[in-house]
Amino acid sequence: MKQNRLRLTVTTEGRGIYCISQKVCKWVSQQSIQSGLLTLFIPHTSASLLIQENADPDVLEDLNRFFNHLVIDGDPLFQHQSEGPDDMPAHIRSALTQTHLSIPVQENKPSLGIWQGIYLFEHRIHPHKRNIILHLLGE
Amino acid sequence: MKQNRLRLTVTTEGRGIYCISQKVCKWVSQQSIQSGLLTLFIPHTSASLLIQENADPDVLEDLNRFFNHLVIDGDPLFQHQSEGPDDMPAHIRSALTQTHLSIPVQENKPSLGIWQGIYLFEHRIHPHKRNIILHLLGE
Amino acid sequence: MKQNRLRLTVTTEGRGIYCISQKVCKWVSQQSIQSGLLTLFIPHTSASLLIQENADPDVLEDLNRFFNHLVIDGDPLFQHQSEGPDDMPAHIRSALTQTHLSIPVQENKPSLGIWQGIYLFEHRIHPHKRNIILHLLGE
Repeated sequence: MKQNRLRLTVTTEGRGIYCISQKVCKWVSQQSIQSGLLTLFIPHTSASLLIQENADPDVLEDLNRFFNHLVIDGDPLFQHQSEGPDDMPAHIRSALTQTHLSIPVQENKPSLGIWQGIYLFEHRIHPHKRNIILHLLGE
Repeated sequence: MKQNRLRLTVTTEGRGIYCISQKVCKWVSQQSIQSGLLTLFIPHTSASLLIQENADPDVLEDLNRFFNHLVIDGDPLFQHQSEGPDDMPAHIRSALTQTHLSIPVQENKPSLGIWQGIYLFEHRIHPHKRNIILHLLGE
Repeated sequence: MKQNRLRLTVTTEGRGIYCISQKVCKWVSQQSIQSGLLTLFIPHTSASLLIQENADPDVLEDLNRFFNHLVIDGDPLFQHQSEGPDDMPAHIRSALTQTHLSIPVQENKPSLGIWQGIYLFEHRIHPHKRNIILHLLGE
């Protein structure tokens, strides 16, 4: 039983959902750990992680649009406005999605369903550079 | 330290919340790993996982009813309508709940609270056959 | 590869968000496991876990206020009213946030971002005593 770790950097172009499946699966395929548990962790509070449908790009747009309606930018409900109208909503959208994902690994591949992709959800309007920590534990 | 893995299949009768605690706990009790970490992963994008109250069945109905109101079937907000009015809501409901659960294990039992059960949340209106991957790592 | 486990008890003063970062990081720093995977699990269905911004206390208040508006105490939509108007909302708020968190550990520290804290989210109006299970697996 052993473990490996990687810090992945993703550059976003502002609010939206970015596929990271290929980068993640490539790293897993290169490890000497064939089966085990993969954990993804995002050390940010205004971007999050998501497993979602990978077939129709409309799904990702609809998901983002749903969150835009659920958590309103600049809502007077929020006291925390100093970092911009999209900052407090970004924290709430992060709380409603995932800061980490755990995926079993077999034969050097995350056991994703055929319609599943791994995504970074950028919640801020402006582009950001985001880190994701990958941790693989197994044998 | 070792690991075991199982693919569990659950047949749903359409949208609703299905208890899988007994199946999961039975499998864990049969493993030679007595303490460690249990991960459940669902390789689908229109069904999800949930830990929820196991005492009053009204809780599960209320939870489903809340989601029916939060994410409206056939909402014109959604571009992705081709797979039916309940498909895009199913993806959003999955994003708002869990694709995976991690539960510490001790004495061959998941360390659930006495009021906690493990559930599959089927988000599609029609019945489906769903897989869940169980992964246990420990000693 | 080895594992350690702790049951942490937190006393809440009613609905709100309580920082547990220091207690968690202190325990991790004292373990002989320097790198690995930390799992936090809450064995309750009306309190949950959260990673959130640790800088401006307004963020935590706004988050709580958002949930107060999203899930209405005593909403006639809910059949489950017998345990008080805040009980069913507490279950839903738990479902929308996290029952468990997984965080990679390096150099005896959880790999949190500099703006991230670990929080217990108490969803009931009255004070409660809550348990959190910490599980650390690594080497």
